[in-house]
Amino acid sequence: MLKVGILGGGQLGRMLLQAAANYPVETYLMEKDEKSPAAHLTHHFVKGDIRNFDDVYHFGKGLDALTIEIESVNEEALEKLEAEGVKIYPKPAALKIIKNKITQKQFYAEHSIPSAEFVITQNLDDVRNHPEMLPAVHKLAVGGYDGKGVHIINSKEEIEKGFDAPGVLEKLVPVDKEISQVIAVGQKGETAIYPPVDMVFDQRLNLLDYQISPAELPQSVLWKMEAISLRIVKELKSPGIFAVELFVTKQGDVFVNETAPRVHNSGHHTIEANYSSQFDMLWRVILGYPLGNTEAILPGAIVNLIGAPGCNGEAYYEGLEEVLQMDNVFVHIYGKSDTKPGRKMGHVTIISREKQDLVYKAHKIKNTLKVITKEAAEAAKEAQKEPVVEMRDRSIGK
Amino acid sequence: MLKVGILGGGQLGRMLLQAAANYPVETYLMEKDEKSPAAHLTHHFVKGDIRNFDDVYHFGKGLDALTIEIESVNEEALEKLEAEGVKIYPKPAALKIIKNKITQKQFYAEHSIPSAEFVITQNLDDVRNHPEMLPAVHKLAVGGYDGKGVHIINSKEEIEKGFDAPGVLEKLVPVDKEISQVIAVGQKGETAIYPPVDMVFDQRLNLLDYQISPAELPQSVLWKMEAISLRIVKELKSPGIFAVELFVTKQGDVFVNETAPRVHNSGHHTIEANYSSQFDMLWRVILGYPLGNTEAILPGAIVNLIGAPGCNGEAYYEGLEEVLQMDNVFVHIYGKSDTKPGRKMGHVTIISREKQDLVYKAHKIKNTLKVITKEAAEAAKEAQKEPVVEMRDRSIGK
Repeated sequence: MLKVGILGGGQLGRMLLQAAANYPVETYLMEKDEKSPAAHLTHHFVKGDIRNFDDVYHFGKGLDALTIEIESVNEEALEKLEAEGVKIYPKPAALKIIKNKITQKQFYAEHSIPSAEFVITQNLDDVRNHPEMLPAVHKLAVGGYDGKGVHIINSKEEIEKGFDAPGVLEKLVPVDKEISQVIAVGQKGETAIYPPVDMVFDQRLNLLDYQISPAELPQSVLWKMEAISLRIVKELKSPGIFAVELFVTKQGDVFVNETAPRVHNSGHHTIEANYSSQFDMLWRVILGYPLGNTEAILPGAIVNLIGAPGCNGEAYYEGLEEVLQMDNVFVHIYGKSDTKPGRKMGHVTIISREKQDLVYKAHKIKNTLKVITKEAAEAAKEAQKEPVVEMRDRSIGK
Repeated sequence: MLKVGILGGGQLGRMLLQAAANYPVETYLMEKDEKSPAAHLTHHFVKGDIRNFDDVYHFGKGLDALTIEIESVNEEALEKLEAEGVKIYPKPAALKIIKNKITQKQFYAEHSIPSAEFVITQNLDDVRNHPEMLPAVHKLAVGGYDGKGVHIINSKEEIEKGFDAPGVLEKLVPVDKEISQVIAVGQKGETAIYPPVDMVFDQRLNLLDYQISPAELPQSVLWKMEAISLRIVKELKSPGIFAVELFVTKQGDVFVNETAPRVHNSGHHTIEANYSSQFDMLWRVILGYPLGNTEAILPGAIVNLIGAPGCNGEAYYEGLEEVLQMDNVFVHIYGKSDTKPGRKMGHVTIISREKQDLVYKAHKIKNTLKVITKEAAEAAKEAQKEPVVEMRDRSIGK
């Protein structure tokens, strides 16, 4: 049995280990927190810091292969391990390009991969010197994650919102759709592309609303997206799973936004909706098996469960029973004991032959299932008990 | 989070724990062997003997609920734990009825549930005294598992094959089909029935060939089966998952063969083929959630991977890559390090709209994927290298 290590113990590691139990593989996991979502699902748990050279090196030494569930790992240790014969998914060279937003953008430019026009900024002064780029997105070169490290600068007045640290300033693309495409690359360079995912945003809140797959797009746009995704992974020259986030304009132009060198939130529906899930696929890549079938069994949608605003503390899943009552709905709770505003606490997948059913249920789930705290749940219950004075007043007023 | 314990660490525990990671639950597992298939997938592993009163009692004390993955657990400890407030799935009273083949048959008789005509036998003399029952099946009252503890006695001459220990002697039913029906019972007694599974036997070898679901049966037979299954779980008065194995005759008569009070080999396809798998469903029952949707997403088939004859030692999965290349096929290897003849080492699920595709692939998988030892694999390779003398001889002989 191959010995395979995972760096990071979050929900991606959790789902990866759920899938690992289908194959003959001995799993290792390193993470600081032994209560993290994935920590209890591995053969061997090693407490350690994935950013620390020594921790990563000692963890990886003696293993056959390593993979990551987050980009912020110690690259140098991975490079040394790779030189000593440990297979790394993705390869450290690919990870290095992607991890830094500056090198990532330069990589697209070098290989004529369409992405938004940009300038490199070392500090806030550099941003001030490029008013011609506005409106723009300012991205920190390193350390941004889950929406952190990104600011939209609409006008000169907002420049001070920018980062006073190395980053890229990208011209805002007039986005019609944001699409994610998960793609697998096998050990011999063979590829398998998943159907594209439409990341539907709440325009008012500028927040991801739900994700639906396969995305409905003209064939010509699909071809462009596939060509771009294939080009990216070809030039990254690494086996593994990659998620390419793309912008599509009303005119049908396609720009890459960014690439993740790992299993991705936009591919979680593949667990139930596709023959080979992205997690299953990563094991096939690592274990040297043939790539799986990326085809959809049924169309699918994902609703993310995000910690509700104002709620910090032990998580309580309000509306869970109601959602579990719905047909064709799959709940994934990540097992994080504490919630905080914006924290990814789980997701719900819906599968259905009917797109209308997906959209209807996605909205229903969003309005039903909330990750709050026990106290917030009790407070809400109390509030409901009080007499409905306001309504009476209104009827009197008429 | 509820604290839930599982008694037994085999493949059923493994798949149960894969499903557990979708829900907020803290898992405990007790098993003698810390290398067992499920041992590494739980929050808390406790080394112990599930047949030992003290081990089971101390394991269960302090947990919210317990479930089993094999019947041979210490009942007395479960009874005591139940009396002290631990919820047990299935209830010890139901387990007790089922565990002993004598009480199980009496239970069917008492509740007018059709099952094959039988006599209770205390020893081999009792078998000799009932020639009128032949041809018959002789089943050990306790301890039979996976085909062990069962003998077919076709004629007086074969009586000596019977067991010289308490058991039941059942008249052979002229079976046209063997059907399994998995059924879930919630905490409030609500039920959900999975589509029936046709257990297709190799008539020549009298071995399970593959399983296909939904079974094709006349509506009147389906109704009888459902009525029988519902009656059984109603009278067992216990929440949990039950698998009812049924015989159907050419005339459309239905007899219960036996009932398992747990997730079951015949329900493994539900992981991919049904909206709520039997494992997902058991968590819903234990955690007090609404029962899931038992409907099939697509028809499914299961091929069991059984240790090949003559192979004892470290398992080698010959043909695995070839099977992983097939579309719509899901491999589950149970992670048992050693194979032995007849040991359940894994299963493969196929899902497809077309029944012909299921049957074709089931046969192909059976002929392709073999669980052997590394040595056997190497010996076979060597043999292939030798000149094909026999064939030449034959052609010369013509």
